Parts: sequence; C-alpha cells; structure tokens
Amino acid sequence: MKKDKAYIIDKIAELSKLKTKNMYLNDFFHTWKETDDEIAATFAVAEILRGLRENNISSKVFDSGLGISVFRDNSTRTRFSFASACNLLGLEVQDLDEKTSQIAHGETVRETANMVSFMADVIGIRDDMYIGKGHAYMKQVAEAVEEGYRDGVLEQRPTLVNLQCDIDHPTQTMADLLHVINTFGGVEKLKGKKVAMTWAYSPSYGKPLSVPQGVIGLFTRFGMDVVLAHPEGYSVMPEVEEVARANAKASGGSYKRVATMEEAFKDADIVYPKSWAPFAVMEERTQLVGEGRFDELKALEQRCLANNAKFKSWECTEDLMKTTKDGKALYMHCLPADITGVSCKEGECAASVFDRYRVPLYKQASFKPYIIAAMIFLSKFADPSAKLTQLLNAGKARIK
Amino acid sequence: MKKDKAYIIDKIAELSKLKTKNMYLNDFFHTWKETDDEIAATFAVAEILRGLRENNISSKVFDSGLGISVFRDNSTRTRFSFASACNLLGLEVQDLDEKTSQIAHGETVRETANMVSFMADVIGIRDDMYIGKGHAYMKQVAEAVEEGYRDGVLEQRPTLVNLQCDIDHPTQTMADLLHVINTFGGVEKLKGKKVAMTWAYSPSYGKPLSVPQGVIGLFTRFGMDVVLAHPEGYSVMPEVEEVARANAKASGGSYKRVATMEEAFKDADIVYPKSWAPFAVMEERTQLVGEGRFDELKALEQRCLANNAKFKSWECTEDLMKTTKDGKALYMHCLPADITGVSCKEGECAASVFDRYRVPLYKQASFKPYIIAAMIFLSKFADPSAKLTQLLNAGKARIK
Amino acid sequence: MKKDKAYIIDKIAELSKLKTKNMYLNDFFHTWKETDDEIAATFAVAEILRGLRENNISSKVFDSGLGISVFRDNSTRTRFSFASACNLLGLEVQDLDEKTSQIAHGETVRETANMVSFMADVIGIRDDMYIGKGHAYMKQVAEAVEEGYRDGVLEQRPTLVNLQCDIDHPTQTMADLLHVINTFGGVEKLKGKKVAMTWAYSPSYGKPLSVPQGVIGLFTRFGMDVVLAHPEGYSVMPEVEEVARANAKASGGSYKRVATMEEAFKDADIVYPKSWAPFAVMEERTQLVGEGRFDELKALEQRCLANNAKFKSWECTEDLMKTTKDGKALYMHCLPADITGVSCKEGECAASVFDRYRVPLYKQASFKPYIIAAMIFLSKFADPSAKLTQLLNAGKARIK
Repeated sequence: MKKDKAYIIDKIAELSKLKTKNMYLNDFFHTWKETDDEIAATFAVAEILRGLRENNISSKVFDSGLGISVFRDNSTRTRFSFASACNLLGLEVQDLDEKTSQIAHGETVRETANMVSFMADVIGIRDDMYIGKGHAYMKQVAEAVEEGYRDGVLEQRPTLVNLQCDIDHPTQTMADLLHVINTFGGVEKLKGKKVAMTWAYSPSYGKPLSVPQGVIGLFTRFGMDVVLAHPEGYSVMPEVEEVARANAKASGGSYKRVATMEEAFKDADIVYPKSWAPFAVMEERTQLVGEGRFDELKALEQRCLANNAKFKSWECTEDLMKTTKDGKALYMHCLPADITGVSCKEGECAASVFDRYRVPLYKQASFKPYIIAAMIFLSKFADPSAKLTQLLNAGKARIK
Repeated sequence: MKKDKAYIIDKIAELSKLKTKNMYLNDFFHTWKETDDEIAATFAVAEILRGLRENNISSKVFDSGLGISVFRDNSTRTRFSFASACNLLGLEVQDLDEKTSQIAHGETVRETANMVSFMADVIGIRDDMYIGKGHAYMKQVAEAVEEGYRDGVLEQRPTLVNLQCDIDHPTQTMADLLHVINTFGGVEKLKGKKVAMTWAYSPSYGKPLSVPQGVIGLFTRFGMDVVLAHPEGYSVMPEVEEVARANAKASGGSYKRVATMEEAFKDADIVYPKSWAPFAVMEERTQLVGEGRFDELKALEQRCLANNAKFKSWECTEDLMKTTKDGKALYMHCLPADITGVSCKEGECAASVFDRYRVPLYKQASFKPYIIAAMIFLSKFADPSAKLTQLLNAGKARIK
Repeated sequence: MKKDKAYIIDKIAELSKLKTKNMYLNDFFHTWKETDDEIAATFAVAEILRGLRENNISSKVFDSGLGISVFRDNSTRTRFSFASACNLLGLEVQDLDEKTSQIAHGETVRETANMVSFMADVIGIRDDMYIGKGHAYMKQVAEAVEEGYRDGVLEQRPTLVNLQCDIDHPTQTMADLLHVINTFGGVEKLKGKKVAMTWAYSPSYGKPLSVPQGVIGLFTRFGMDVVLAHPEGYSVMPEVEEVARANAKASGGSYKRVATMEEAFKDADIVYPKSWAPFAVMEERTQLVGEGRFDELKALEQRCLANNAKFKSWECTEDLMKTTKDGKALYMHCLPADITGVSCKEGECAASVFDRYRVPLYKQASFKPYIIAAMIFLSKFADPSAKLTQLLNAGKARIK
C-alpha cells in the first residue's frame, strides 16, 4: 500500500498540530520521557519520510555531517537501520569501533565524546548488556557533547539516539508499535486490544530486558490491555513496571502481570513471546564482569541456562496461538527469534507459527530505519512540518 | 587517451540500439546468463561512465541509498572497486561484516538479506571459497530480496552483483575483456586472436577456479581461439567447459584444452597464466569444512601443496613469452600475482615479465570499478541511454 | 566567537595574496617542506572552512570521490578528524584495513596504492611507530600514485596527507598552532612568546617522537623562543633540531635545549609537556621488530619502562605552572594525556592542571578536521580563493 501525496499532506497537517519544541536539539532516551505529542510526532515523521521515499522524493536534509555509531554489542539490523536512517537524511555514518580506537589509552567518556563529534550531528549508541550501565553511559555522552557545545568546542549540538540500553529499546518498540498501528488500521483502533508480552524459552543466555521493558512502557500508553507473563524469577525492572501502571491508568488501558503464557495468550490481539534474562542475574553478571570474576561468570551462565531449561514449555506453539483472539493474534518478535527445529532444538516459537508470520515480522522490522530517521529529524528541525512540506514541494528525486 | 564528448555521444548511440530490458531490476550472476546485447551494453556503459568522469561530469544518479557489500573472503581491489562504483553513482557502501553481526544467532539467509536491505539499492557479494556454495548463497539472497520486494517488505528491489563466486568472477573477466578490447583497438579486432588461459605454479593453496572459468566462459564469445592448459588433475568445472565450447561454436572461435603451457603460449596473442586449485580438491575441501573435519583439511592442504610442487615448471618465463605472437603477447593477471623472487621464491611469473607489463596490468584492473558501476546502472535504469544522455547534457561537475 | 561573513571575506582576501601553486596536486609530508605562504594559506583555508560551516554554508566541493585512510596504529581522533574533513568536502572515506585485505598475499606497496586509488582524490596515512619507516612508506605511496597518474592508470592524482609519521605530525601541530594563534589573538602576537616543549613521565612505553619534533619544527617559524627539555637519553632526531635552529634564525626567534622541566617552564607563555620514547630506543625497536627478535623486544620494553621510571618527577604540576608567565601559560596536549590519579597513578600532568585547561584542550583538538580539510582543499584547487569565494556566494545550506 504505497502512500500517495494526499496521505503525506494529511500526515504533515497532523504533525503541524503537535508540540515538538522540546525534541529540538534534544536526545531520545526512553519513550516514557517523551510526551504523547512527541511520540505521535515521531510516528508521523516516520510515516512521512517513508511516504516521501516511496514516491521517490529525496529527504536529504544534510549536505554534509556525520552520524556517529557506537555498538557495544554485535548488531546487524540496528546497525543497518541506523546507517539507512542517516543515509536517507544525508549524514555519513562513522563507527566508533572501540577496538581500533585509543579509548583504552586512558581517555574519558567526556573526552572521546567531544573528540569524535566536531562534525557530528547525531550519535547512536547501543549498550544493552549491563544493568545500570547502558543508560548511564548514554547520559554521560549526551551531557559531554551538550557541555562541549555550550563551551564552544562543538559548532553544533550532536543529539543522541538510544539504539538500545539496559532499560529501554525505543527504536525497536516504536517500530513495533507503528507496525501494530498499520496492522490494526490506526492508532485509534488500539483501545481495548489485549497485548501479551511474554517470556519464552531460549537455549541462549543473558538476552537483554530492554525489549519487554520497552514494550510495557510504551504499549500501555494507547489504552491497550497489556499483560506481562514470565516464570518466577524473570521479573523486569520494577521502575518500568511503575511506568507501565501509570501509563495504563492515564490512557484508560490496563497493565497486569500473570503467571503463565496460557493466561497471557488467552484472547490476546497481539502476542510478543521472547526470551530474556532474569533481572537479578543481569545484575549479578554486571557485578562479576565489573570485578573481573570471570570464573564465577561461567558458573552463573551454567546456573542460568539450567534454570532456563526448567521452562522449556514456554514456547509459542500452534495450540497456544489458537487460544488467542479468533486464533489470529498478531505474532511479533524483534528478531532474530529462536525457532524450534530451525535455529535451535527447542526455542521461543514453533516453526509453523513463525513461518506464517514471516511477512508481517519483516514488515515490523521495516519501520525501524524510519523511526530512527524521524528521531534524528525531530531533533534537528525546530519546525518539522514546514521542513517536510518544503521537501514534498521540492520533489527532488531520490533516484534521479 | 582521455575520451572526449564525441566519443561519449557515439557510445550512447551504440548503447541505445542494444536490448537491456531484462537487466532492469535484475541480478548479474554469470556472464553466460547474459545475452550478447547485455554484455555489449555493460561494456558501453562502463566506457561512458569512465568518459563522463574523465570529463569531470558527475554520474551521481542516486541522491541516497545503500550499496551492501558482503565479503566472505579478504579483499582489497574488489572491495575498493565496489566502493568506488557505488560512490560514483551516489550510493553509500555499508559492509555486512558477519563477525560483528548477529547472523550467528540463528538468523537465516532470507531474514538477514531482508533486514539489511530496507534502503539498499544493490548488494555485492564475494563468496568464492567453497565449491557449490558461493553461487547458491547469492541465489538465495537474490530470491529473498525479490520476495521481500514482492511482499511489500522492501520498497525497492535491491539487485545483486556477483563480486566472485565459486563458478564465475564476472566483474573481473568483464574488466579483463574491456582491457583487451582497448588494447587491441575494438571488439571487432578480437576475432581469431589466440588466448592462453593457463595454470601456473604458486606456493599457495586453494586459489579459486572462478577466474579461469570466467575467462573461458566469456572470451569464447568473441570469435577468439581460447586454449586452456593445466597439469593433470587441475581441471575446471565441466559445465563451464560446456559453456565455452558452445560459445566458441556460436561466435566462430574455438575452445580447446591442451596439456602444456608451451603449447598454449605458442603464437598466443594473449596469455593469462594463473594458479588455481584442482576442482576435486576444492570439492573435498568444501566437504571437510562442512563436516568440521579440520585435521583432514590440514592433511589435504599438505597433499595439495606437495602436488602443486610437482609443477613448478609452469611459470611464465621470458623464454615462454618469446614463443608468443611476435614475442609480444598481452600478459594478463587479476592480481596479486606470485612473482618469482619478489613475492615468493618460485611463482607464477618471472619478475622481468611482470615488470614489463606493470602498466598494462594496472590498467586492466582500472576497468573493474566501471564494470561494476555499469552493472548497477543497467539494473536500475530501464532506459540507460536516455539517462546517460541526460547526465552528459546536465554536465554537473564532479569536482565542482 | 562565531566568525561572520566579513571575517570570511577578509580571510579570503588574505589568502588570495599567498602563493599556493606548489600545493596544487601535491602532497603534505612535513611542515618544513612547505613555504611560509603555504603554511599561512593552510591556516587561512582552515579558518575559512570553519567560518563557512559556522554560517551553515556548504563547502562540499566534491560530488563524488573517495578519501582513502590507512591507519597502521590505533586512532580515534585522527580517524574522526580525517573522516570529518573528507565528509565536509564531499569525499567518502574508505579505510584500507590491512587485516581484511589481501596485502599479505604478496602485493607491493606500489600495487596496492594504485589498486585502491582508481577513484581516490586523497590518501591519508598514519604510520608513526617505526623510526625510518613511516615517512618512507608515505613517500612510496605518493610516488606510486603519481606514477600511476602519469602512466594513465589513474584518472586523477590522489594527493597524500601525512596523518602522522615517524618524523612529523603536521595535522596535529598545525592544529596546535592555529589554537595558539586564536588564543593569543593573531599570528603577529606570537613573536617573542616562550614555548616549552618538554618531555613528561608516562607509565606507557614507546610514544612516538613526531609531536615534539613537529612542534619544534613548526613553532620556531613564528619568532617564538622555543625550548626543548627532556631527560638525558630522550633526544629527538638531530635533523629536526637542525630544522628548528634554521627556522628560529630566519624568523627572529630562538631554539634551545635545556636540561630540566623547571628551566623550560620558567616564564613560558605556552607549555606542552608530553611523553615520548628515546630516539635510540625507537631505532633499536624498529630493528628488533624488523628482525623478528620479539624476546629482546620485551626486554627492551622493560628496560625502557625502568628508565622512564627514573624521571617520574617530570610532571606538569600546579607548582610548575605557577612559574610560568603570570602563572598562566597556555597548557597544551595532543590528547589523550596520562593524568596523575585519573588515567594512571603517576603521569604527565596533575589532574587539577588538566581540569583547568579542559576546554582549551578540546578547542585545540577542534582545529584538526579543518586543518586536514584545508590541506586537501589546497591540493585540489589551483585557485583556492576563487573557489572559496564561489562557495561563500553560493551560500548553499549545510543543514538545508
């Protein structure tokens, strides 16, 4: 369903009514730090940028400039999504690879942040592995470049996009939600829909909590009934559950925790079964790594895997899918998934379920580059709807 | 010999008569899958793009967009050729580095191909190490993104350029042939020329077969007398020899295999002495790697090196060069060459021969970026001659 | 202090009076190989490019083209400075990573240099580790591409920018000096200022000599009184001291060596305390590495560290700073610094001194991307002031 120009004009009109002033020259850390207008504006800009591209209209707003990326964990899709977003807007990605840099030689975060940012318009960071670390690091970087800008070291204020931290994964969950909005036919259709964010078994260890946390922290803002399910011991950060509860209250939805996948899936409109590590394990792990106690780390991993193995029944099967609303809930995953009999012996999801939802899953992922581009765009233009109107009217071809 | 605008106009006229419709939104796998018109069009576009650049005229046809590269083997010249080609047309290269990606975490080829391609216009892949694997992998990727495009996951159809597979190395051999055409003064001068594609000794092991295969599969299309020479046991894929025979028949040339370098070089107009591994060894190696039998792999390598060593006399010496047409055959190599006394004790070529042909060898290599750019260009524009005329007339400066 | 357009116009007028003809299509190796006009032109272009960017005016002079980088040592700031400079002018950086390339397979420097340069406008190299090697390598590369251009292999002449060699570090010291000029209010204010380039203790081993050498080789050209201080055995290359003496004589300044940090700091206007390895040690190290004598290398390192440790008192303390001119000398460092109690137990500089100068230090670094861009610019435009006037008048927005 290619978006036509009328659609784009409508979306720009919608955007022009939203307050985005605080996004200008600002960072994007957690969705719950953004107002409803700001979240709506991010979706609108993402859809408009996508519409422009579908109509072969350039949205290259930077003639030059760098987008700095820092990946403290391996990454395919986030790396390419960030690269795509930067390229779409005219920024060139320069990766800060900590292995080939001199960071080890005693540089501070503040120093490095400034040194790489003399011509940087945006910094994207993924740092999701250690509880209490990822977000703290991003804040440090953002404050350092803000200070550098104030002190006249940097000629522009590089804004930061959280590409996944220990707390939230906003580019993922915003893409997820935009997929939901497109699937259900509009944000106004979400009220009363049931969402099952559930743990699922995986033979791998230590997957970050930022996806379930991000989902409950964002989806609860739209009047949906969000249910979180996980085995005992796999709880998420209590602060984020607080956010979810407050959101649900404000939006007229609900948030609750249930004890089984079965209960969560029952009549759900949307299911998001996915493995993650227990918060307590992630905390212990962070401490062990910090203290260099690598032998104990190994033991912790063994213990954790053994514990995981008790919950192999937490799998998204065809039988479970049948219990969802009309047996047709929207199955979601941030990918890659652990698919039983495909990528592992026993995993998060039955192969036949995954296969049936392959195209929707890929579409879900396709929103991420546009979400990232929208975040960058809104941090760089004080009047985004004027700028987008200008791009639409200029109608410069992407492929000339 | 800088090309002037009259030359460019002539070439565009030539191009406009060729049928390139099937190249549009299509992949480039093996030269023999392309029609004569398509091969001629690739040469024409390569020369036109080169001419434009020599006249400081921009051929940046993409305002934004990514060129994805996947190198499953180390590479300097192909990496830079692909980067140069993408940059010339306005695409930004994003390398899919399988070591820093999450591909190991259970992603399928289909999934990864789509995940990296949301804003990709072209994908270049080098995967030449394992018989039966490289081409198969490329087909899988191409089919995955074709499917993704059809399903509405991808907004554009990324086209694939084979940067070397187990069967063919089309960007190399097309560059090679364009060098030959330029050296001999036109494609019509090639009829009746003798080409010696011969094995040569190298102290290294397991060089891919795609160059000799690609050469006999392409050069036979131009009425040349192509001779393949190698020691017993070093034969190439029989299917490709079939292609060579059929080509030769159709073009009025010939293809035959001879047993010695001497026979091949005799009165040759062109010589291409180069090491490669025996097909059977490459097959065995593929199997051993697949089954993780690394001890046997080591033994295979030793056996293969010992066997190679029996054929140290297969070297391109001054004496052999004297036996070629007027003692002045065009010496070719895809580089880097194993040069006796320079890069190894005993190798593919005598140092004095290599030195004498250094400039032609470098020129041979210089065609590759333009060949790759031509392949991309033809896969992206339904009417390439109209687009090139437009670029010529616009006359936008590359260095402003 | 944002530069306004009047400032830019003045600077262009200044530039138009300088002879830069020899910089066109030429390389930048050592500052002392450049005339006074050429040094002044580099500063002027750096300031103009910075002024344009501060006024949101694009200086993208390349529509396409590559900037090749070769880093034979880890690097953050130089890598990002080069990337920023290339991006500012419209070149895309392509890194020649020797680990993922085929260079090991017997390629010569001449061959690789040509193979990566078919569409390269500039090559930036950092090779600072081995005495007698870095500069020699750069010369080889520059000669190879010059020859390739002459022979018609390359369509353009890629020019070389020395991003640090064993002898000089011109992009660093030119940035340093531009910082000094800005701090003291103009190049004419430098006459008679005392500069203390002094060794300082660091717990790390084998830091390159190119910074102190570069500083004494450049700062002596401006009528300043340059003093070099280091413990016995830590002398720099005698040839560079010769350059410093000759410069000082010509500029009406002075150059001398003193035995203590105290003597150097006394009444200094500028202090640059920094660790480096003894020249003799670097020579021995180069030889040991060259001959693969790695056991002895280890021993050399131990010996060198033990020797360093004798000079822990060579630290830039508050007490020493008090002895400088009005107790307010400009403290400089190329970063990262070894800060006592912060990045190491005992280091080059007291934490309170470093902290007090943090903003000036970051500003010092901020000139590097513009210095590199200026070097590239001057090697690519025969009439730089005309081109810059054109950019200013065009007034194309960087952020549109």
